[in-house]
Amino acid sequence: MRNTKLVTLEEAIHRSGLRDGMTISFHHHFRGGDKVVNMVVAKLAEMGFKDLHLAASSLSDVHAPLIEHIKNGVITKISTSGLRGELANEISHGLMKEPVVFRSHGGRGSAIASGELHIDVAFLGASSCDELGNASGCPRSENAKSICGSLGYALPDARYADYVVVLTDDLVAYPNVPKSISACEVDSVVVVDSVGDSTKISSGAIRDSKNPRDILLAKLAAKVIINSGYFTDGFSIQTGTGGASLAAVKYIRESMLEKGIKASFALGGITAHMVKLHEEGLIEKLIDVQSFDKVAAESIAHDQLHQEVSAIEYASANYMGSAVHALDIVILSALEVDVNFNVNVLVGSDGIIRGAVGGHPDTAEDSALSIIVCPLLRGRIPCIVPKVTTLITPGKGVDVVVTEYGIAVNPGRPLVKQRLLDAGVQLTDINDLAAKARSIIGEPDPLPFGDQVVGIVMDRNGGVLDKIYNIVD
Amino acid sequence: MRNTKLVTLEEAIHRSGLRDGMTISFHHHFRGGDKVVNMVVAKLAEMGFKDLHLAASSLSDVHAPLIEHIKNGVITKISTSGLRGELANEISHGLMKEPVVFRSHGGRGSAIASGELHIDVAFLGASSCDELGNASGCPRSENAKSICGSLGYALPDARYADYVVVLTDDLVAYPNVPKSISACEVDSVVVVDSVGDSTKISSGAIRDSKNPRDILLAKLAAKVIINSGYFTDGFSIQTGTGGASLAAVKYIRESMLEKGIKASFALGGITAHMVKLHEEGLIEKLIDVQSFDKVAAESIAHDQLHQEVSAIEYASANYMGSAVHALDIVILSALEVDVNFNVNVLVGSDGIIRGAVGGHPDTAEDSALSIIVCPLLRGRIPCIVPKVTTLITPGKGVDVVVTEYGIAVNPGRPLVKQRLLDAGVQLTDINDLAAKARSIIGEPDPLPFGDQVVGIVMDRNGGVLDKIYNIVD
Repeated sequence: MRNTKLVTLEEAIHRSGLRDGMTISFHHHFRGGDKVVNMVVAKLAEMGFKDLHLAASSLSDVHAPLIEHIKNGVITKISTSGLRGELANEISHGLMKEPVVFRSHGGRGSAIASGELHIDVAFLGASSCDELGNASGCPRSENAKSICGSLGYALPDARYADYVVVLTDDLVAYPNVPKSISACEVDSVVVVDSVGDSTKISSGAIRDSKNPRDILLAKLAAKVIINSGYFTDGFSIQTGTGGASLAAVKYIRESMLEKGIKASFALGGITAHMVKLHEEGLIEKLIDVQSFDKVAAESIAHDQLHQEVSAIEYASANYMGSAVHALDIVILSALEVDVNFNVNVLVGSDGIIRGAVGGHPDTAEDSALSIIVCPLLRGRIPCIVPKVTTLITPGKGVDVVVTEYGIAVNPGRPLVKQRLLDAGVQLTDINDLAAKARSIIGEPDPLPFGDQVVGIVMDRNGGVLDKIYNIVD
Repeated sequence: MRNTKLVTLEEAIHRSGLRDGMTISFHHHFRGGDKVVNMVVAKLAEMGFKDLHLAASSLSDVHAPLIEHIKNGVITKISTSGLRGELANEISHGLMKEPVVFRSHGGRGSAIASGELHIDVAFLGASSCDELGNASGCPRSENAKSICGSLGYALPDARYADYVVVLTDDLVAYPNVPKSISACEVDSVVVVDSVGDSTKISSGAIRDSKNPRDILLAKLAAKVIINSGYFTDGFSIQTGTGGASLAAVKYIRESMLEKGIKASFALGGITAHMVKLHEEGLIEKLIDVQSFDKVAAESIAHDQLHQEVSAIEYASANYMGSAVHALDIVILSALEVDVNFNVNVLVGSDGIIRGAVGGHPDTAEDSALSIIVCPLLRGRIPCIVPKVTTLITPGKGVDVVVTEYGIAVNPGRPLVKQRLLDAGVQLTDINDLAAKARSIIGEPDPLPFGDQVVGIVMDRNGGVLDKIYNIVD
């Protein structure tokens, strides 16, 4: 190769022109196994950078080392979809002067495309990359180590950032084909020991549930879907990553087989469950912004009908071509739902940030039918409440709430309600569910919020939806 | 589908906000079979538009109807890579007040990306498209009619045009997967009877030669390649579409088999010849900006190692990630080569425009070894000349010229010259070739150029390389 973009991380940072106060970005396709954020920020700290804005597609438990970099002034601003673990806990207690900005996946894509979120330097981990920068989340050699499948959340960064650094632990011969990130968008390529631990891409929210309550919720959700009027040949579906949401796929599958119904596509974070239905011929195509497990990551590497899409193509509100606009049914989870069908998936009932906005508001709003599957109570914590602690998904986009104590339909969807009643599905009122929770738990103490804004939740179009205040222990 | 971008062509034009004086664009993947340019411009004429700038990736014989639209003031400016047939003839004789702007494929990509060539409305023909605009040059249903394979030249238009209209003759169910053009880049989708005649995608310059002179030239070119020092395991290659250039592939193949050498990739307009070598395992990957025949178009539809690339990813000078920067060997044809190794592939020795810039200057400059295969004479027309009629590819990027009367190496490449001499390849001087042509044909009359500039040839970086004057009969 006569030309190469191969440099060390330090040299890539030098060449990028990064200065104090600028914005750096990262993707979260390795989820709990990500090694790029900590590695790059440690290097930036070592190089003496200060006052950086870290704009990640999401952050998780593994990013606790950022706490020190925040304390030392290396990172003074964060934009993300989610926060979990000790970092989230510290931020909830007021670690940062500047509030964390939370955006949905589609909202982040739109903000990057519009320039509202301008990225100076993107640091993007890739499972394989050639010397000119053609990068992929798929393995392309026997040396492949860190596989994440779709690079959907990295694609807006690659396209719009002023300077793009790809980090890889498998430098492969040019040309790396098929590419996810084009060499024409990449400025430097850095080879590192490891960009991520593939075994952890299915960590975090995703698990296969054997919990009897989850199974019950899944059965109820499937019943709603099957009788909603949207369960027709060629329908499309997205499922969240909660246990009940994933378990529902099993019951939907049974009904698809029984009725001879096939889906045109499944969308979103793609799991082994969806790959299985696809390979059985029950789901024609998979539209994948994030591969949620090893099976999905292997499928996207080989199956032409398993399409990678960017965050923009997945869920941006202002792109009529984004896939959520064609989505029929979405099953989502929640930390809290209130009597106006508003949903919180970000802040725990203790006021501590412990989740992610994700594609929740994007899919809820644009799908034809959104179903929230949520227990009435989690231990001593009520999930159906008079008012959500933090507003993430406005109730106008939420159609049905399924709990183990009953199913409530948004009054704004009388046709769905009627169809379910006609099918003999028992319904209840969301206020009755909230009252039931209250009757079991009693009136909770008000949360000990302080007056420091620690988080701002943006809506899909760049407006402010809600604010998160610090918690005072 | 709750959302659709489906409209009539007239409605798409209305919605686009197109006004007199604006720039419209087209791709030429259907080559001589293209139906989109004539259809759209006829509609624009009918709707009363005037003074439009038509920016096509290339134009050919089939676009003769533009002559009337130019006479009527509908089209007053043209940018293209090539011109052929009656339209080219008329323009060479001074049809247009404003000179036609010629750019290489890589140059056009760069100009679109930089905004130097700003496209207001792109009209892009697609072999398949869904209602939201996910478009492809590949067939996706049994109703597929017009197949062109790669949509590489349309991709910069789709990405950078203010408004994008996809025209298709096969509207398929959402989602059209895998997509070439993303629904997020498309504003309107128009269904038409036919976007192109697939049987003609291999028309124009491409033919399989049985001409003994072409066979001789091909053998000589293969000899140069094999002994150039660049014919090593993992080499990469692009061949032009001339008969000798294509025939050379046969001899290179034999040598690859004999020496156990494999190529890492073939680049450019991909032909059945290259697909065959790929399927034999002799070429690992195909990087395809334009599928030059049915076999190539079928291959790209099914083979993950046959990658579509945009014109920018193919050949843009200012993107270090474009594939030409990794290209080892290119075989190109020429209308004329002069004693300074400058090449003309656009204007005939009669001064009439009859060709296309294509990727010629892009690949010649950025490849490690460029070989021009060209007869000394075509009938009574000398091809090795003291000075090219029009400068398209500067001699500094041209390494070897192969004629049936001898092989000349650019003095700027002494190492290549030495390697060929060491291998016993007989070489001659380019001046001797020009003198030989002159001795056979005699001194040609000067061309009857007028003083009207009818064409401007841009270099790869947006500077002016040469001007073409009108021909006075």
